Amino acid sequence: MDTTTPTTKPAYAELTRLQLQIYRFRHISSMVWWDRAAMMPPKGNEARSAAQAELEAHIHRLTTDPRQKALLEAAEQEPLDDLERANLREIRREWLAATALPESLVQAQLIASARCEHAWRTQRRAGDWKGFLPNLREVIRFSREEAQCRADASGLSRYEAMLERYEPGMTAAELDRLFGDLKTWLPALAAKARQRQAREKRLDPQGPFPAAKQRETSLAVVRLLGFDFEAGRLDESAHPFNGGVPEDIRMTTRYNEATCIDSLMSTIHETGHARYEQNLPREWLGQPVGRARSSAIHESMSLSFEMQLARSRAFVGLIAPKLAQAYGAQPAFEADNLHRLFTRVKGDNLIRVAADECTYPLHVILRYEIERPLIEGEIECEDIPGLWDAKMRDYLGLDTRGNFENGCMQDVHWSEGLVGYFPTYTLGAMYAAQWFAAIRRATPDLDARVAAGDPGPAFDWIRTNIWSQASRWETPELARRASGEPLNPAHFRKHLEDRYP
Amino acid sequence: MDTTTPTTKPAYAELTRLQLQIYRFRHISSMVWWDRAAMMPPKGNEARSAAQAELEAHIHRLTTDPRQKALLEAAEQEPLDDLERANLREIRREWLAATALPESLVQAQLIASARCEHAWRTQRRAGDWKGFLPNLREVIRFSREEAQCRADASGLSRYEAMLERYEPGMTAAELDRLFGDLKTWLPALAAKARQRQAREKRLDPQGPFPAAKQRETSLAVVRLLGFDFEAGRLDESAHPFNGGVPEDIRMTTRYNEATCIDSLMSTIHETGHARYEQNLPREWLGQPVGRARSSAIHESMSLSFEMQLARSRAFVGLIAPKLAQAYGAQPAFEADNLHRLFTRVKGDNLIRVAADECTYPLHVILRYEIERPLIEGEIECEDIPGLWDAKMRDYLGLDTRGNFENGCMQDVHWSEGLVGYFPTYTLGAMYAAQWFAAIRRATPDLDARVAAGDPGPAFDWIRTNIWSQASRWETPELARRASGEPLNPAHFRKHLEDRYP
Repeated sequence: MDTTTPTTKPAYAELTRLQLQIYRFRHISSMVWWDRAAMMPPKGNEARSAAQAELEAHIHRLTTDPRQKALLEAAEQEPLDDLERANLREIRREWLAATALPESLVQAQLIASARCEHAWRTQRRAGDWKGFLPNLREVIRFSREEAQCRADASGLSRYEAMLERYEPGMTAAELDRLFGDLKTWLPALAAKARQRQAREKRLDPQGPFPAAKQRETSLAVVRLLGFDFEAGRLDESAHPFNGGVPEDIRMTTRYNEATCIDSLMSTIHETGHARYEQNLPREWLGQPVGRARSSAIHESMSLSFEMQLARSRAFVGLIAPKLAQAYGAQPAFEADNLHRLFTRVKGDNLIRVAADECTYPLHVILRYEIERPLIEGEIECEDIPGLWDAKMRDYLGLDTRGNFENGCMQDVHWSEGLVGYFPTYTLGAMYAAQWFAAIRRATPDLDARVAAGDPGPAFDWIRTNIWSQASRWETPELARRASGEPLNPAHFRKHLEDRYP
Repeated sequence: MDTTTPTTKPAYAELTRLQLQIYRFRHISSMVWWDRAAMMPPKGNEARSAAQAELEAHIHRLTTDPRQKALLEAAEQEPLDDLERANLREIRREWLAATALPESLVQAQLIASARCEHAWRTQRRAGDWKGFLPNLREVIRFSREEAQCRADASGLSRYEAMLERYEPGMTAAELDRLFGDLKTWLPALAAKARQRQAREKRLDPQGPFPAAKQRETSLAVVRLLGFDFEAGRLDESAHPFNGGVPEDIRMTTRYNEATCIDSLMSTIHETGHARYEQNLPREWLGQPVGRARSSAIHESMSLSFEMQLARSRAFVGLIAPKLAQAYGAQPAFEADNLHRLFTRVKGDNLIRVAADECTYPLHVILRYEIERPLIEGEIECEDIPGLWDAKMRDYLGLDTRGNFENGCMQDVHWSEGLVGYFPTYTLGAMYAAQWFAAIRRATPDLDARVAAGDPGPAFDWIRTNIWSQASRWETPELARRASGEPLNPAHFRKHLEDRYP
């Protein structure tokens, strides 16, 4: 992408210059966030907070620079090529999002969500819904204001305006259609899989699983998955995340010495996110068109790695000898047993983040069906526990009455005013299944290739169709170009029916 | 320090607000520099350079904010207390330094020194003085312009104006007096010590010295020296340095598996720098008065730790068992032998950074006597090799004719336009000796206390007299308050005469 200043498109050139400047400050911001989570000693916290606040305020001034309004209008009239038009579309989206909210609302939200989230940490463990409720009400009050501002600026409905931050172009009608379909068959599929699995024999691996060994195994698997260690690192932090910048990805994980599987799977998941970023087109970096497409597409990458690839029987055959080497050979590390462990449907699990791929979407649908009317003002915070209990019973057959800790207080999202994000987890799972259906059409012997140690064909397809496309296309067009059709939930159903017959 | 906005001193309050903002951006800058040296994978370099340049440009805009000129004048008339007056003095010094150079000169210097330093890396190894000379000439041309600008802005001589950046208030006349004194007795002292040591028996420790063991030993010694690991880290980098911020110090070191002593001593040295920063008064941080006083005072801290404390016979007795524990007991780790190794005067050493404490000042004086007339325009770059060879012969009795690599091309400083810094190494050594003379007066049984494992009295004195004073006093006043007199080279002479009889 040419970001010099051709005289025929001065407004566009000025916009790209500003975007590049923002990109560079965000690079700095991203690195100090990573440092704070992975490296910083405790007494550095106070000064770091003040320094980061100063930096974020500066980035905010740049993203809301009022000159952009006129520049956006002027650039519309300039002779741009298709790629530049796509970039302009993304710059405008960013500008609308950055300027939709009055500064006073942003400040009020920060204060309310910091208070709510901080108290939630102890209130959750105590199951203290009564204590939590007034704080949550305050956060949701501001989220509703935010939704109204974003709706006014975008012309979308209030919930869709929130969704737009993470999943541009997705509509509530489309979510209703997709999730409505899932609800008709998924609860039965999960129940049937559980019944079948109840008759299977499974062996749990025997420890110890020292952190140093887990780290070795993780590094080996991450290498096999193609992560470029010349352009990134894997470190440890209390809460695993994917930080850094496309040119220098900072993955983190956490080693639980009670199990050798959790951290490995979490790291594989993060590697899917990481390779997307590492393989975004270099020449577009610095511009919004060069960014990862959306939260759902990002999640489709992590779930392609974790669910589609790593939990396949073929790939489990690659992991098995590495585990045996690290912790000593034992029957539990026999590949078929390991695969049974990796595809276990848990009947009594109340927690979204601990859910398997069959029940996870039901946890998501439940949250969607609560947060959408909550934002639209059709229900109130007081209604959440009752709705939660009813839906947990309906979709998962589980009783959460009176269990706030592992019921409606389990997620941090709403405490932080993060509304509209949950659906992207399941959209990502659906896209991942759709990508792998296309990959198997292109490479019918994929599993044999993977079993032989070569997942390359999957990565080649993903590189061509997803990574290299960044934000060049709106999401449905990206999906159509990649797989011949926009999002089609039939692929996800087929995937689960094949794996959980 | 009160940084709110009292109505009686609005200009001062505004200046401190701006300083706090600069401090916070420098925090961010410092952390990404550390990351770059200690953590960043190679492919992150290009994007990082661009991001750092953007950040530094922003910091430059803040430090040269033209509003400061009028604010400084207005603040002079406001009712400030003594501490605020000291802060205002340091703010003015910073402002003068930041605005003395035209932007075009700064840019030209950056380009010339980057070219010269980059080529120097290979030219030095090849001993290619002819190739190096035109680049160096260009760098020195701009350094002379810089010196002239700084002299015009400050009223100092050209060399003193350069020195002022590192050692505020130090004059060329004072350097001539101090270094002139050294030259009368130090070469003979060093020669005599070498003769005596030639008759001593010394055992070299036998390896292997694995990096992991060196790291353990370093951490133990750094802990003994009181470094606060809750407010800092020790990591590895190609070139050891002291990074981070006072609230979160990032020391780095490098482990050479051929020796167990070099990295340990380098880390002890850095710990002296680190504890100064860690113990600057918290309530002044963010303001120039809260900064470390000067380069020489900083070096006096690292040399207090390395030369005064760690190479004393008492402290070597604490290190000896740690080395024996890490690498296995052997006669070389007997404390008296170790002390002989730690206080060895090397007769044939051409390299400043490898020099012992007796010969190091002679390397520094040589450089001072070249860089000063060079900046003043009294000699040219072509004259350097001849002067170098003559002075190496006179001060150290060594022949460097034709040896550019380990002669006049050994240091990176001049390639980078860093002129006026060398003297601070030896001023630091002198101050360190003066501090320890005062400490021994206050605690006559210091060595017995150290030998018993308690260097606390030294730290207590340093905390009271140096760390806690930050930049509250001009350097001579700091020295007078701490030790009863301004810098007096007799203490350094006494120290060396006692240790090298």
